[in-house]
Amino acid sequence: VVAQIIDLIRKKRDGLALSQAEINAFVQGVTDGSAPDYQLSAFLMSVYLNGMSVEERVWLTQAMVHSGDVLDLSHLSARKVDKHSTGGVGDKVSLCLAPAVAACGVVVPMVSGRGLGHTGGTLDKLESIPGFKTRLSTSDFLDVVNQCGLVFAGQSDDIAPADRRLYALRDVTATVESLSLITSSIMSKKLAEGIDGLVLDVKVGSGAFMKTLDDARALAGALISVGKHCGVGVTALLTDMDQPLGLAIGNGCEMAESIEVLKGGGPGDLVELTVAIGAEMLVLGGVAEDTDEGWRAMQRVLNDGSALERLRTVISLQDGDPGVCDDESLFPQPKLTASVCADTDGFINGFDTERLGRIVVDLGGGRRQMTDIVDPSVGIMIAKKRGEAVTRGDVLATIDAAEQQALDNAIEAVRSSIDIGSQPAVHKPLILEVLR
Amino acid sequence: VVAQIIDLIRKKRDGLALSQAEINAFVQGVTDGSAPDYQLSAFLMSVYLNGMSVEERVWLTQAMVHSGDVLDLSHLSARKVDKHSTGGVGDKVSLCLAPAVAACGVVVPMVSGRGLGHTGGTLDKLESIPGFKTRLSTSDFLDVVNQCGLVFAGQSDDIAPADRRLYALRDVTATVESLSLITSSIMSKKLAEGIDGLVLDVKVGSGAFMKTLDDARALAGALISVGKHCGVGVTALLTDMDQPLGLAIGNGCEMAESIEVLKGGGPGDLVELTVAIGAEMLVLGGVAEDTDEGWRAMQRVLNDGSALERLRTVISLQDGDPGVCDDESLFPQPKLTASVCADTDGFINGFDTERLGRIVVDLGGGRRQMTDIVDPSVGIMIAKKRGEAVTRGDVLATIDAAEQQALDNAIEAVRSSIDIGSQPAVHKPLILEVLR
Repeated sequence: VVAQIIDLIRKKRDGLALSQAEINAFVQGVTDGSAPDYQLSAFLMSVYLNGMSVEERVWLTQAMVHSGDVLDLSHLSARKVDKHSTGGVGDKVSLCLAPAVAACGVVVPMVSGRGLGHTGGTLDKLESIPGFKTRLSTSDFLDVVNQCGLVFAGQSDDIAPADRRLYALRDVTATVESLSLITSSIMSKKLAEGIDGLVLDVKVGSGAFMKTLDDARALAGALISVGKHCGVGVTALLTDMDQPLGLAIGNGCEMAESIEVLKGGGPGDLVELTVAIGAEMLVLGGVAEDTDEGWRAMQRVLNDGSALERLRTVISLQDGDPGVCDDESLFPQPKLTASVCADTDGFINGFDTERLGRIVVDLGGGRRQMTDIVDPSVGIMIAKKRGEAVTRGDVLATIDAAEQQALDNAIEAVRSSIDIGSQPAVHKPLILEVLR
Repeated sequence: VVAQIIDLIRKKRDGLALSQAEINAFVQGVTDGSAPDYQLSAFLMSVYLNGMSVEERVWLTQAMVHSGDVLDLSHLSARKVDKHSTGGVGDKVSLCLAPAVAACGVVVPMVSGRGLGHTGGTLDKLESIPGFKTRLSTSDFLDVVNQCGLVFAGQSDDIAPADRRLYALRDVTATVESLSLITSSIMSKKLAEGIDGLVLDVKVGSGAFMKTLDDARALAGALISVGKHCGVGVTALLTDMDQPLGLAIGNGCEMAESIEVLKGGGPGDLVELTVAIGAEMLVLGGVAEDTDEGWRAMQRVLNDGSALERLRTVISLQDGDPGVCDDESLFPQPKLTASVCADTDGFINGFDTERLGRIVVDLGGGRRQMTDIVDPSVGIMIAKKRGEAVTRGDVLATIDAAEQQALDNAIEAVRSSIDIGSQPAVHKPLILEVLR
């Protein structure tokens, strides 16, 4: 294989397009281990710098899908739709969304990740529920989805192993931020779930991977085009991440806030995004004619308790304590709590959102390395969001911590992450664009 | 170091220039093994695609020089000058040149390589002399150079170890043909010999690595600029490699042909190039005012036997049999010999020079892999060179082989590598340009 891989490196180095057979040979070498790391990383850098055509991205995605198991959910008559977020601060939409969409009759086989760096992970938030298991065998995964129309799980080792090997290498060779590689990585994992449709939440702003609208549009466009060629309907929402989503940042508090939404309450922006993404999933899932109908259905299941009922069921099926839906004190409780108060009058003009995410990591609520253990009890509750008026002495945020030094550091850091101005901030919509 | 190397990859990936400290850290990681292969290969590909400035090339060269031993020849009052060829077919200039230049009073500490692919290697040619040793310890190397003003040796493991690791990786990651990487690789090995000057023979044409004059000019310019910044005088000759140099292609026969040159005979083109390169070395070595004086000195030592005497001495000092200088039959003799005759009248218009080199490899006289063993007795003797008239039945070449099947294959292959036309070929000079 060495001779073959070097020919592929040379072609991509010279800016030429690879054939489907060549891309299949590459992924074969990745999967069976015959291609050494040093050749893969040279290849990845040449892709980073010279890019791939839509055709090549599709072939790479398909080859990575077939590098491992592909879930077969065809025995379920309802369509299967998943959601993927590029990651943000306080982004607990998946937790509200999956039970609500399932309650509307679309199957949601949700495969999520863990937090790394300043963004949190859905699995970590779920594991703040006492007993909840996210490591499921394929048969347990199918059992749960068969019984309640949704499941929350981590990625199995048997799903897209080629992507796992490439991702680990990209992480240490400065080749993560490649549109071609991001697209095939995300899409291969999602397609291996056996889904019919996918809604993407592409975050834009200070707390997101994509800092500008143009970058976010490019990523959304790349994912939509690959999805289309692979026969999966893809809709992308570009959404604001210049401030945290909702009020809670942290694992236990975000889970609790999600339960509020499923009870018909919760912060307005979180509800709005849950309903908007859910409406698109219902359209792709064939249970709503259009997004208006989807919005109405989503609002109904959030208000009539049927979405919350789905959450209770899935928690039970995954060995968690559904009592958390009625008693917030069952979540791990913080040792220390303190408030950050305004030292001036004015208006909240904005947040250093990425920094807020990093403060939670520093409190112990996130990971610097994949092997770090996450503390579900720590976090930040924002009290005032962008545009709100503040008076000197008002509480801006509450911090939950496990030790005094971390709490003291967080108080100052949170204060300097909140920008208070003398004029109200210009209103910014939460949903910037929808691409289909 | 992992964190540091990834920052350097990212910078080079983004087309930014590295600082001297960053390049030193990179070479440190290469030399001490702390940087893993997969990071080095991603870095090499980003250098391949984004290039390096002259400053970066100089820093990389200097860091690689100091990754290992640097020879100290300062006890010798004469200047030390070496020659480097980018490799051609029938290129035995080093064998004629080193004894002649040493006879003129310039020290030549010549470090050479082995043949790989279609080009031969000086060490393999020397080893056709019974007993001749090219693996010398540093103290043996210094002994020989002290006693006769020249030495022929292979690269020691202690010279530029960073280059050796990078070169091995470049070979398997399609990152060989980078001007920045070629320049620092060649110059680091040469500078570690402790030389004052270097003459480059950059081959251009069908038998060379550089197929066009523009490519050859770019490489020569890159090497000269790095040499200048490192305080070493560099002169580059761009020379024709559209036909083999001299008549002999093969290890023993090339050594024998070189001895002819040192006796004042030999093919005209080989003598011309030996004298031209030698003249430049004498100017850089401070024993000739200008190249005219250098030409005269070179011609004198080739004709008066003093150059041959130097060869005898160095052969003896390196454990070889100096009798080969008087008796060609002491070289390993071929088992089988056959002639290739013209099947038409006409003029020699040209050669597929690279193919002639590959035929000698197929005969057993070269290497496909570094571990192959070379047969010194096989080869091709060209009988007619470009521009000469031929009559049907004339001998075009003689082939020396070790077995019948290989000989039969070679006869047809050699015939089809020689282009006979009805009109004489336009004359092409051997020395195309001299860059200083």
